[in-house]
Amino acid sequence: MGMTITEKIIAAHSGKERVSAGELVQVSVDLALANDITAPLSIKELEKQRINSMFNPNQIVLVADHNTPAKDIASAQNLKLMREFAQKNQIKNFFEGGSVGIEHVLLPEKGLVLPGDLIIGADSHTCTYGALGAFSTGMGSTDIAAAWALGETWLKVPESIKFIYSGQPNRFVTGKDFILFIIGEIGVEGARYCAMEFTGSGISTLSMDGRFTMANMAVEAGAKNGIMEADTLTLSMLSNIPLSRKPKIYRSDSDAEWKDVIEVNVSSIEPQIALPHLPENTQSVFSLPRISINQSVIGSCTNGRIEDLRQAAEVLRNRKVHVGVRLYIFPGTPAILLQAEKEGLVQIFLESGAVLCPPSCGPCLGGHLGVLAEGERCVSTTNRNFVGRMGHTKSEVYLANPYIAASSAIAGYIITPDQLM
Amino acid sequence: MGMTITEKIIAAHSGKERVSAGELVQVSVDLALANDITAPLSIKELEKQRINSMFNPNQIVLVADHNTPAKDIASAQNLKLMREFAQKNQIKNFFEGGSVGIEHVLLPEKGLVLPGDLIIGADSHTCTYGALGAFSTGMGSTDIAAAWALGETWLKVPESIKFIYSGQPNRFVTGKDFILFIIGEIGVEGARYCAMEFTGSGISTLSMDGRFTMANMAVEAGAKNGIMEADTLTLSMLSNIPLSRKPKIYRSDSDAEWKDVIEVNVSSIEPQIALPHLPENTQSVFSLPRISINQSVIGSCTNGRIEDLRQAAEVLRNRKVHVGVRLYIFPGTPAILLQAEKEGLVQIFLESGAVLCPPSCGPCLGGHLGVLAEGERCVSTTNRNFVGRMGHTKSEVYLANPYIAASSAIAGYIITPDQLM
Repeated sequence: MGMTITEKIIAAHSGKERVSAGELVQVSVDLALANDITAPLSIKELEKQRINSMFNPNQIVLVADHNTPAKDIASAQNLKLMREFAQKNQIKNFFEGGSVGIEHVLLPEKGLVLPGDLIIGADSHTCTYGALGAFSTGMGSTDIAAAWALGETWLKVPESIKFIYSGQPNRFVTGKDFILFIIGEIGVEGARYCAMEFTGSGISTLSMDGRFTMANMAVEAGAKNGIMEADTLTLSMLSNIPLSRKPKIYRSDSDAEWKDVIEVNVSSIEPQIALPHLPENTQSVFSLPRISINQSVIGSCTNGRIEDLRQAAEVLRNRKVHVGVRLYIFPGTPAILLQAEKEGLVQIFLESGAVLCPPSCGPCLGGHLGVLAEGERCVSTTNRNFVGRMGHTKSEVYLANPYIAASSAIAGYIITPDQLM
Repeated sequence: MGMTITEKIIAAHSGKERVSAGELVQVSVDLALANDITAPLSIKELEKQRINSMFNPNQIVLVADHNTPAKDIASAQNLKLMREFAQKNQIKNFFEGGSVGIEHVLLPEKGLVLPGDLIIGADSHTCTYGALGAFSTGMGSTDIAAAWALGETWLKVPESIKFIYSGQPNRFVTGKDFILFIIGEIGVEGARYCAMEFTGSGISTLSMDGRFTMANMAVEAGAKNGIMEADTLTLSMLSNIPLSRKPKIYRSDSDAEWKDVIEVNVSSIEPQIALPHLPENTQSVFSLPRISINQSVIGSCTNGRIEDLRQAAEVLRNRKVHVGVRLYIFPGTPAILLQAEKEGLVQIFLESGAVLCPPSCGPCLGGHLGVLAEGERCVSTTNRNFVGRMGHTKSEVYLANPYIAASSAIAGYIITPDQLM
């Protein structure tokens, strides 16, 4: 019996020749990540346990991306705690201030994530790195604290589900729609504790940015991780970044064991929208009634990359945001923002009446920079639309791709670019 | 006995031929302003008093500039309250989302403030509009509520102090230094309940942006208002803006009564810094010991105008923000940000490692977007450095002009541009 990519990476990090789904294993970790919400919990746990020595500071990554620039004194104190921990332990990968990007956009950009890596993070969307052929998954802050101290963690080897995407996508259909469509099909528990392996020629049509979006939302189907085979596009992206380690490319064996195999022809996928209050409440934008909005958000670890900004700018160019609608744009990293500036996208955003915000998680999880009031409705390129996710428990979030978020901001209601006047 | 500009404007709005210092008068108001911190208090007071009808909706200006993009649910609810009040009362001058600028930067830009106006605002820095030859002053939220309902307010006519600025300013000396220097001389109560009238050839050397900075900080010397004679530069600025009313230019009579006359030769002023925890703790930057900083803030109603951004960019061009320092830049309005983008300033900021924030009051009053932790030190172009103003009660704020804030961000300690390597 062969192994899947996920099993091979876990085996390689467990010192075993092979592992099987359901097995509990101890694994070394290449990186253990935390942000300004979760790192303080990890740090305090280490203090409580009187653990002063970290296994390897180069395994530790700290990104102050959630409530920064510091939204209040408590946030500022958390940043200070992270900063002092980083200094004390000589952690070079601590990002704050002008170096802050959204963690899951920033790490691949910095060459910190490589194919074949095993990465854990105190953030549920750590699964994003699967787009590079890495095994990565979210864990609790105390798990991360333990990994910092020990250099390893434990996990149960997940079963794998294979998703075969074929065909050519329609206009305005993106990686976001590929993954929303699947979550709609299998539900938010459809891949519970499984590896979702995304394969097929449909995936090859996607840019790396589109692939990150897909892997990012694997957790919204309940998955342990999402993963893709690194291909020439992956290697081409990596060739532009100074890498600290050597990538290891794994492929699932032809006789690997799959819990399920699901086929999708992407040419049948229309631009998707996930209605409140679950990512599985998907339908085609074309079948929606007129849903007016108060706010549109473009950004996040799901859709804050340069391709996402280009898609938004394509729609916003020479158009004005609808009166009464707030459009907030969050580039994923400082480098992406600078690139957008050089390409003229920033000027397009500003001329449209959009509000350009610094790289941050912003309002995605109700943190700051665009929290919703009672009864407000927001279309958003983020990843979750749970009750109260972006503010008041009586607000509503509709998940979509950047084309839809931009065109809806122009129209004042949810619409695709080709439906705009 | 003649009258000062301040007395003439108050007289014209009281229906009297003349008023004298110390007199209590009822005056009509041209505008009554509130922001997202104060407007909700005004609106709730009107509700409590069951007052449903406003005197004239065109007198009312609402600017959601403090905690926006909404930093939490409470802020979002306050915005919603303002929005609904604006809709119900047909208030066209309600600014939120993409139209938000910092109130005291935005109103002059929108042609809402004219020479000869009498303007009150539920914000202490309402005195900014004195730079245009208007009488403007901060009041409480209930005063503003009453003015919305009645179209008028009452006040005691202030005594006037005349400041005569002569000479040519040194390099890196700005309007901010003119006003900080004077506050240092007379103290934070030095002009208590007085009109500060800024006159002389030194004022003529200043751009309108520099003049706004000066009038803005009159309240930091305890003044009721700051004011300047509108001159050809004032009229030239206004000629580029569609105005809703006719400007009325007043000049103080040669036999006007002054509580005091203070002369300053600006050529003797060096770049100023106001040390914690009062704006009167000023000294020359050149006489400082080495004071390391964690953060630098460029923006606010004091220094968020295009000239301020140009000064910052002049220093930041081809330089990098010091490791461990956060530099947050807040353009005053969307138009200023767009102008900065077109002039290439945004690219300079981003390349330097600065964090560009949306137009907002930001951390100036500890609201959000850069709140300080315990023990942190910030150089800031804002207007107040009181204990805990920008965050933790054990943080420190040093007030300075944009040149100093930018060069200090580069050096990591407080320094002038010409001291940079």
